[in-house]
Amino acid sequence: MHRRSIEIHPPTLLLDREKCMQNIGKMAGKAAARGLALRPHCKTHQSAVIGEWMRESGIGSITVSSFRMAIYFAAAGWKDILVAFPFVPTGLCDLEELSAKARISILLDHPSATAFLKKLSHPVDFYVDVDTGYGRTGIPAEEPASVEELLKAASLCKNLTFRGFYCHAGHSYHAQNREEKDVIHRKAMKDLARLKGEFSHYQPIALYGDTPNCSIQEDFQGADVLTPGNFVLYDLMQFLAGNCSAGEIAVLMACPVAGVYPARRQVVVHGGAVHFSKESMRLDGQEIFGLAVGREGRQWDALQGQTRITGLSQEHGIVSGPEEWIRGIRIGDLLHLYPIHSCLTVSLMKEYRTLEGERIPTMHLKA
Amino acid sequence: MHRRSIEIHPPTLLLDREKCMQNIGKMAGKAAARGLALRPHCKTHQSAVIGEWMRESGIGSITVSSFRMAIYFAAAGWKDILVAFPFVPTGLCDLEELSAKARISILLDHPSATAFLKKLSHPVDFYVDVDTGYGRTGIPAEEPASVEELLKAASLCKNLTFRGFYCHAGHSYHAQNREEKDVIHRKAMKDLARLKGEFSHYQPIALYGDTPNCSIQEDFQGADVLTPGNFVLYDLMQFLAGNCSAGEIAVLMACPVAGVYPARRQVVVHGGAVHFSKESMRLDGQEIFGLAVGREGRQWDALQGQTRITGLSQEHGIVSGPEEWIRGIRIGDLLHLYPIHSCLTVSLMKEYRTLEGERIPTMHLKA
Repeated sequence: MHRRSIEIHPPTLLLDREKCMQNIGKMAGKAAARGLALRPHCKTHQSAVIGEWMRESGIGSITVSSFRMAIYFAAAGWKDILVAFPFVPTGLCDLEELSAKARISILLDHPSATAFLKKLSHPVDFYVDVDTGYGRTGIPAEEPASVEELLKAASLCKNLTFRGFYCHAGHSYHAQNREEKDVIHRKAMKDLARLKGEFSHYQPIALYGDTPNCSIQEDFQGADVLTPGNFVLYDLMQFLAGNCSAGEIAVLMACPVAGVYPARRQVVVHGGAVHFSKESMRLDGQEIFGLAVGREGRQWDALQGQTRITGLSQEHGIVSGPEEWIRGIRIGDLLHLYPIHSCLTVSLMKEYRTLEGERIPTMHLKA
Repeated sequence: MHRRSIEIHPPTLLLDREKCMQNIGKMAGKAAARGLALRPHCKTHQSAVIGEWMRESGIGSITVSSFRMAIYFAAAGWKDILVAFPFVPTGLCDLEELSAKARISILLDHPSATAFLKKLSHPVDFYVDVDTGYGRTGIPAEEPASVEELLKAASLCKNLTFRGFYCHAGHSYHAQNREEKDVIHRKAMKDLARLKGEFSHYQPIALYGDTPNCSIQEDFQGADVLTPGNFVLYDLMQFLAGNCSAGEIAVLMACPVAGVYPARRQVVVHGGAVHFSKESMRLDGQEIFGLAVGREGRQWDALQGQTRITGLSQEHGIVSGPEEWIRGIRIGDLLHLYPIHSCLTVSLMKEYRTLEGERIPTMHLKA
């Protein structure tokens, strides 16, 4: 908490550039040590500037979650982009435009989508989206016949080339303990290895990765490329799930105090659902939307686990904490709070401010 | 559901202009019939264009939730703006700038904030934020001595004038039934009337209103001005709470289908947490993030209560529905879905598309 730090006025998303670069370097090193490529997902940071930091770590290909995001990063000079979302026919014009100037890969999980891809003007790669148990999108890994059917339909599309399999084992986010995480990971690795074997005449590669698995697992046999995204910034969700240390979280929200209510041990900050998002977690049985963290100059390592955002309305954040904490808080003070889910908070905040005061825009902020 | 409506590509926020104008007209009529002024909150629609529709209904003063929003609407020509958020000292520069060109009102709930308001360059009005039971911000209505203390501190601030009381009885959103709603409303009316009496030498007025109370209550004795916001668009939250009809909801999301999974009776649309927000509700014990609605041309009245968004990740929406529904869905189709909370969805979507195809920007979209 900072007294009257007037330089920060509305809720501000602070970024520790050093931590962010360390996170990128660590994951790049982990992939390289295993002979894996890293094609990080940019849906978390959503910023061409942070994209440059990735490039400085030797990264040459990226993953995005929409054509809109692909257009933004292509304009920033990226030449090898995977749009990791099942192809929607309405995106055909974007795909044509993008594939004219960059190597674009898409995901497919059903033959019907290929009907729209028959007359591509430029080469486009595709990966088969494989579901190893998450249950969101993808062909279940146990259905190679469906893969065969999709490949057959795709073979009728000029300029469309099968490159391999893509698996986002997002159920890793819901695993209750290390054992469950390991089971999810081992199944995904086994499924991908088997599919690569069954379709070996295509020489397919396997793309894999959500942040939990890429952060905590060591053995990635079955995968060739890692595609995590959140690790660049991390957040409270990753920390509380044991996927990073509190000190690795590279973003926090700085919010001014608007009201102090000692009787109910609550403070109201300017910082609501339009800043944090309404993503929540349960901690000790309590629904929380963020946790306070101590900041001393450039450092913010001391998580204040008892000081929590316990409610959010549109612009208001209700922060509940211990009596001794609330006694020290005044209207106009700044609270520093870790967001639950950095991807959503970044989307809402639209720009970062580094600890050095530099503004870093995202794709949501027009120049 | 529309087959291959290629004109809509990414998730789009559709606005029925007629319904929106009807909602504005209905609330304006309700206030006028009771001799009350209407100072609608603009935090839901966040658009200068919709602000103009308000002006066409005879509305001359508005409410906003941040200085940033006040700056946006002042630039759009509004001359009487209440910033309905307890004054944060870091906003002083904005307040100075705004009050030079418009009549600005702020909220206060603690004497300490007045320390920053001693040397205002231009007249600023303030209302005492009163808590009648919501427990978010405000002086508890039962503590007139705290009001007295605040007024005393404020009297030392040149250019700062007390105008009355402001009450947002937001606990109306959590009321379980009509009786609970009535109890909340009657207490607020009684509290405001009593405070106006106790401080009658100031000739204070009372500002009141959240959308639930302003929509369903009839007797507003105790209040002078109504300040609801959500009623302009309404949403699923208001409908399921009985505060509007399904036909009065003036916005919906149009999302293209990216994947169809008949075995689990689910469809994945492009439309996730960065479009809808993660606001959820429980319906029949199930957590939902939106409900499907039938659209025939300009009409969208037929709520499909069994077809629900049951999961959201960043860009993916998982829609679960009955077997006969899923049999008719193809990749590339458009689904129409009511959002849970229009305020948050508007903030994320940044612009509307009317049924006539006109783009309507919000404050989040730079020109």
